Amino acid sequence: MKHVKWLSCCLLGAAVFAQAPPADTLVSPEVHPDRRVTFRLRAPKAAEAWLVMDYMPAGTRQPMTREGDIWSATMGPLEPGVYIYSFQVDGMTIADPVNPNVKLRARTSASMVEVPDTPPAIWEPRDVPHGTVEINWQKSKVINGETRWIWVYTPPGYERDPKRRYPVLYLFHGANDTAGGWTLAGHANFILDNLIAEKKAVPMILVMPFGHALPYGSSGTLTSNTDLYEKYVLQDVMPLVEARYHVAPGRENRAIAGLSMGGGQALTIGFRHLDLFSAIGAFSAAVPTEFEKEFTSLLADAKQVNARLKLLWFACGRQDSLFERSQKLADLLAASQIKHTFRPTEGAHVFKLWRRYLSEFAPLLFH
Amino acid sequence: MKHVKWLSCCLLGAAVFAQAPPADTLVSPEVHPDRRVTFRLRAPKAAEAWLVMDYMPAGTRQPMTREGDIWSATMGPLEPGVYIYSFQVDGMTIADPVNPNVKLRARTSASMVEVPDTPPAIWEPRDVPHGTVEINWQKSKVINGETRWIWVYTPPGYERDPKRRYPVLYLFHGANDTAGGWTLAGHANFILDNLIAEKKAVPMILVMPFGHALPYGSSGTLTSNTDLYEKYVLQDVMPLVEARYHVAPGRENRAIAGLSMGGGQALTIGFRHLDLFSAIGAFSAAVPTEFEKEFTSLLADAKQVNARLKLLWFACGRQDSLFERSQKLADLLAASQIKHTFRPTEGAHVFKLWRRYLSEFAPLLFH
Repeated sequence: MKHVKWLSCCLLGAAVFAQAPPADTLVSPEVHPDRRVTFRLRAPKAAEAWLVMDYMPAGTRQPMTREGDIWSATMGPLEPGVYIYSFQVDGMTIADPVNPNVKLRARTSASMVEVPDTPPAIWEPRDVPHGTVEINWQKSKVINGETRWIWVYTPPGYERDPKRRYPVLYLFHGANDTAGGWTLAGHANFILDNLIAEKKAVPMILVMPFGHALPYGSSGTLTSNTDLYEKYVLQDVMPLVEARYHVAPGRENRAIAGLSMGGGQALTIGFRHLDLFSAIGAFSAAVPTEFEKEFTSLLADAKQVNARLKLLWFACGRQDSLFERSQKLADLLAASQIKHTFRPTEGAHVFKLWRRYLSEFAPLLFH
Repeated sequence: MKHVKWLSCCLLGAAVFAQAPPADTLVSPEVHPDRRVTFRLRAPKAAEAWLVMDYMPAGTRQPMTREGDIWSATMGPLEPGVYIYSFQVDGMTIADPVNPNVKLRARTSASMVEVPDTPPAIWEPRDVPHGTVEINWQKSKVINGETRWIWVYTPPGYERDPKRRYPVLYLFHGANDTAGGWTLAGHANFILDNLIAEKKAVPMILVMPFGHALPYGSSGTLTSNTDLYEKYVLQDVMPLVEARYHVAPGRENRAIAGLSMGGGQALTIGFRHLDLFSAIGAFSAAVPTEFEKEFTSLLADAKQVNARLKLLWFACGRQDSLFERSQKLADLLAASQIKHTFRPTEGAHVFKLWRRYLSEFAPLLFH
């Protein structure tokens, strides 16, 4: 959490630790007071180096300029939030070698930089009571006997009153992410801490499983992954959650949401199980192309869907290549007279938006 | 946990996910059935590439050989366990760009590879009840009001009986690691799960704070870091643990241990607070050079120390540059007639050993 501070302090002096001294006192990234950010890479023999950031249109990249052994690029001023980036150097795509704020992924390397706001944004740690995030390990019955982890946020005070029951939001990550993504990159825990402190959201549990049921990069499709993942969520994850945590019973107290691939999963699993979930959220979702076909009969029964779904909320940035899918879903739902909220925003396919979306979505739940 | 599987499955076919397809289907690392491991790097323009692994003597590295755009090196057969490695390519030190099993650090990049044992070693997930690891966030009173995280392992069944009280091991990481190191690289949770399932260790709580009280790489020394960290542990961490978790009271139920820098911290804080801790462990410890001077009067009072310390256990590998410090400590304690166990082993300054040491140390606690 204090990565920025660690790095800025590296300017102060050489390491004197007995073990594993830093090989390099280079500072990268450096967040300037005006919210410009300088990225640096020591690459003495490189012929070329580029910076790639998550908000840049696909295929574009920022050339870095060389001074001695150091390549650098300065971007911004950038809006407060998180940015994911990597370097492309001589045909390799690498994380920033000196930035400890690594973006954990299912594959490929990247780093993160946090541009703070003043006062701290809703996704930054504030001086409020903090919930905890628990990592549960479980041998899956559904997925090859794999020992998989499930990250679970419990709100402040959860442990103090075992008789109190909490509603649950199942919250899914995107393709090439991990079960830790909503915590480490999304700051879902801080967002809920802050919303709860402001009484803008009711205290709730977040359940964050690992969304790749088929190995990432395998020959499976998003659809076949969702089918297996649905079984996993229903037969492994939900029983663990209902047995271990103090959850309020019934569909009224259960919501499902996700981002990108996870948004598609939330829409599919949510619509397949209106018996289990009363609210659905989808952020920059990979809306399944077969959505209309799969749910033809539900789409023809707006009365039933509207009676059961207390909330159907989705959002997408206009600069996201998936925007059309959300727009098409909105049109389909409107034509079918199914109640929903579609929030088109500015922005690309980035975590910075997903934090905003969660902070808008969570307050609407469980009233 | 399933990193090896994800990677091996990448051979099966091209990515078909709508979002963020893997840029590269290269497999690295590849663990062969005979426990040799092949490391690969796509670096089309590199003039030179080396592999650096944690067990190699300082300054040594393995040249990688080139075939087309791919550089590779095959090592081993390697003993089962975890290995930390990085690539040195054209003057850059980088993590393996396609290995998702990143070693999180306070600075500098590295990757991990797990060489599994058959049957699964004590540090691998087995089909036994699993404890959880909870991430707590706390605004520190001691360290600049930083919001710091504390990772806490609770044993299987912990949540089922709020009246049961558990002993606590405070477990510290090494320099340039994070609060997650004992979980993500050390598998302390699996070690405890397995020992508890075999009734070789009593169920206990592990408390794993972030050991850099001064910014890593700052001008502080190990000693000044330990002094501030001691305050942090006593004034921030322990009050949170005692308030939030079901801990058994008193020094008899409290132990302190650590690896490398954390081993030095455990020795110093432990000896300074025999009123708080009844057992001390130090793995490949950076034994403070001023240890004898600081504890002159305690070293002259073996009777008191032996009456209070139920366990003083330390271990180090003979190929570790810190070995002499542990040997010297053993000699000093012997000369002072202070009861202790010193376990010299084969091996270097590596996590593979620290898993073994924890699995030997934990069973000795809290009897």
